[in-house]
Amino acid sequence: MNTLAALLPDGTLVTDPDILAGYRQDRALDPDAGTALALVRPTTTEQVSTVLRWAHERRVPVVPRGAGTGLSGGATAQDGALLLSTERMRAITVDPVTRTAITQPGLLNAEVKRAAAEHDLWYPPDPSSFEICSIGGNAATNAGGLCCVKYGVTNDYVLGMEVVLADGTVVRLGGPRLKDSAGLSLTKLFVGSEGTLGIITELTLRLLPAQPRQSTVVATFATLEAAIAAILAITARLRPSMLEFMDAVAINAVEDELRMDLDRTAAAMLVARSDAPGEYAVAEAALMVAACENAGAREVFSTEDPEEGEAFTAARRFAIPAVERKGTLLLEDVGVPLPRLGELVSGIADIAARREVLISVIAHAGDGNTHPLIVHDPQDADETARAHLAFREVMELAIALGGTITGEHGVGRLKKAWLPDQLGPDVMALTRRIKDALDPHGILNPGAVL
Amino acid sequence: MNTLAALLPDGTLVTDPDILAGYRQDRALDPDAGTALALVRPTTTEQVSTVLRWAHERRVPVVPRGAGTGLSGGATAQDGALLLSTERMRAITVDPVTRTAITQPGLLNAEVKRAAAEHDLWYPPDPSSFEICSIGGNAATNAGGLCCVKYGVTNDYVLGMEVVLADGTVVRLGGPRLKDSAGLSLTKLFVGSEGTLGIITELTLRLLPAQPRQSTVVATFATLEAAIAAILAITARLRPSMLEFMDAVAINAVEDELRMDLDRTAAAMLVARSDAPGEYAVAEAALMVAACENAGAREVFSTEDPEEGEAFTAARRFAIPAVERKGTLLLEDVGVPLPRLGELVSGIADIAARREVLISVIAHAGDGNTHPLIVHDPQDADETARAHLAFREVMELAIALGGTITGEHGVGRLKKAWLPDQLGPDVMALTRRIKDALDPHGILNPGAVL
Repeated sequence: MNTLAALLPDGTLVTDPDILAGYRQDRALDPDAGTALALVRPTTTEQVSTVLRWAHERRVPVVPRGAGTGLSGGATAQDGALLLSTERMRAITVDPVTRTAITQPGLLNAEVKRAAAEHDLWYPPDPSSFEICSIGGNAATNAGGLCCVKYGVTNDYVLGMEVVLADGTVVRLGGPRLKDSAGLSLTKLFVGSEGTLGIITELTLRLLPAQPRQSTVVATFATLEAAIAAILAITARLRPSMLEFMDAVAINAVEDELRMDLDRTAAAMLVARSDAPGEYAVAEAALMVAACENAGAREVFSTEDPEEGEAFTAARRFAIPAVERKGTLLLEDVGVPLPRLGELVSGIADIAARREVLISVIAHAGDGNTHPLIVHDPQDADETARAHLAFREVMELAIALGGTITGEHGVGRLKKAWLPDQLGPDVMALTRRIKDALDPHGILNPGAVL
Repeated sequence: MNTLAALLPDGTLVTDPDILAGYRQDRALDPDAGTALALVRPTTTEQVSTVLRWAHERRVPVVPRGAGTGLSGGATAQDGALLLSTERMRAITVDPVTRTAITQPGLLNAEVKRAAAEHDLWYPPDPSSFEICSIGGNAATNAGGLCCVKYGVTNDYVLGMEVVLADGTVVRLGGPRLKDSAGLSLTKLFVGSEGTLGIITELTLRLLPAQPRQSTVVATFATLEAAIAAILAITARLRPSMLEFMDAVAINAVEDELRMDLDRTAAAMLVARSDAPGEYAVAEAALMVAACENAGAREVFSTEDPEEGEAFTAARRFAIPAVERKGTLLLEDVGVPLPRLGELVSGIADIAARREVLISVIAHAGDGNTHPLIVHDPQDADETARAHLAFREVMELAIALGGTITGEHGVGRLKKAWLPDQLGPDVMALTRRIKDALDPHGILNPGAVL
């Protein structure tokens, strides 16, 4: 450790166990987290390169980490590894002419949005955790959010990057150009690689003009089937800028906390928005209202008031913490092709009944990405075991429906046991060949994904 | 050859030299094209796998080919290689619920657009060659087009694929899901890999709702500087659905052929469109008219008539064949970050003057992607030599301006000598490591890109 500390500015390398303890886990709270050798908090690409060169020579594993808000254990400390936190890499510049931002990885997603907004520009991807998650972590997991149904995911916005490879080599990929067919699409490969191929030290992000004011539709349904029918009817007619789903458990959990006068007896609630310009948003909202009514909605409410619309969006974002008050959560992230959404949601209800655990389903419904929240009491060993069985069965169900075990959180350590079931042996072998080619000694985030 | 023919349906493998001659080159007309062993025209993924398994065992190179419209020599026949044409793989299905198309690679881009249009859906990427280029070739080169300034490139629309690896293994990547963070972003890696990593046998494409009716603005300028100023003013205010540039040579060449009453004395012409809904397109057109006028346009014309707008778009698309009547073309495809567009265009004029060759510049101006057309007489050895010098210097200029040697055509064989200058040795080494990991015997499209 001393040899590395000597190569870095004072204070960059930390071995104080009290500080290290705060970096041991991410939000997956992996109980198997190990004890790292040290924590490094570089401020420059050169320092990241120094760390990796040092680690590569000595075959010391390196676990990269953004804001530590990951839900799949991608940043869990490993015994004998270095933790590399990008939290101090916080520079950003926005170029309104190319509508791009060049940012270091440590900024929070919300800070990138704010920097863009100063130029009337918009960085769309919006994980529910946008106020606390880092843009580097977003790129590492190919994060999504609520707007993806219309605007796509993080990889759709990454035009270029600087990345430090396993041996410390620094490469620049892509750049502020919408079109570039020169060589392999390496930029896109590193997005979503969860720190297993390199450590991203700078991102060039595509920005859009500021999002127009949104219209908001809120609808409640007496049955899940009616809600699913409304979702499919909406997406068949238009591209909403948001189309979110909450089940009865989530509605009640939110209402317990926020007292918004939500319908506690509803089986499901949808929050949908349109950001078409001007009165086209009103027209799209009217189409969405009609789709909900035709599907047999119990109550449908529509508003042009941005604050009111934001309140319902915030309620949806608040569903996870609200359900968390009911018990410890296993937070799922399974997705299916949209026509299978009904089967997924009803299949999850079957699993909950069979395993006798409470599962609340919230979803980015418009893109088929659901977050089943499996509630359990970790003091109750039997319930915890049943919750883990349900967690596994939900993933198996998603795979059986042609879906994915993770739509936006990443595989990390929590889900890697199921990745081969989704991808199959040939894709796993392909993945392994790329991993081995880029990180022959396996020092980059070992134990994650593969 | 007989052992392979016996593994395939009758007529799939062709060795007739007359037929092979028609597959020797693509539109790059590479004079160094070799003589292939045979041509295979499979109809199924299984047949592609059979061919690659056979070739892999015997270390026989395989050159994949779509419609043969490539402009970088990516499909040039090699001595002793098998040519694998996907032209007979033509199945497509469109799912309006997930707004996706699943297509084999042999369909033309225009056929994919038509299949989508039957469901009121739209596949945006639109290379100028969209009526004759294949969707598989589009994916292999990460093709672009005129709408990319607003809608992005091919890779933005590929959600999944089936691809046959070098050894014949068939893998499925991604699928009809907007969000999928499970494992590496392999789908995106194969897009733009120009047949060097695998052969794509099926694509899952994201579709959008049908494009709204467009407003069209045409403006002419007495100086290049004024035209560039207008481009930057437009992109700083809004996202046009098209923003195309033609220089004086192109304007005159088009006018020679089409007699549209274009201003032959103008230095530059812009054709810009907006597809914002309803009167918002009119409003955006008005903003673009104002931007052109403020930049000192000589004449500005605006139309809501779709046919009239389409006629100007067609004129722009026709610029390459029109200039081609002046002589043989070296067709360039360099791109730069938008703020450097003026330097690129004026630098190209300097190169033309210095090398005493005619270079006409047309451009997808809104995304900084230009097509300098270097006109020469191949019978004139000296002029041809100067044309090739200019071709090289245009790429060097683009690289010096932080740009790319190819925005949308791919590297192929024509540009591979310059790829290291753009990417640098470390990115080339990274590329090579991935290539070697996926195609250890180097049988896939050898000589292309690397």
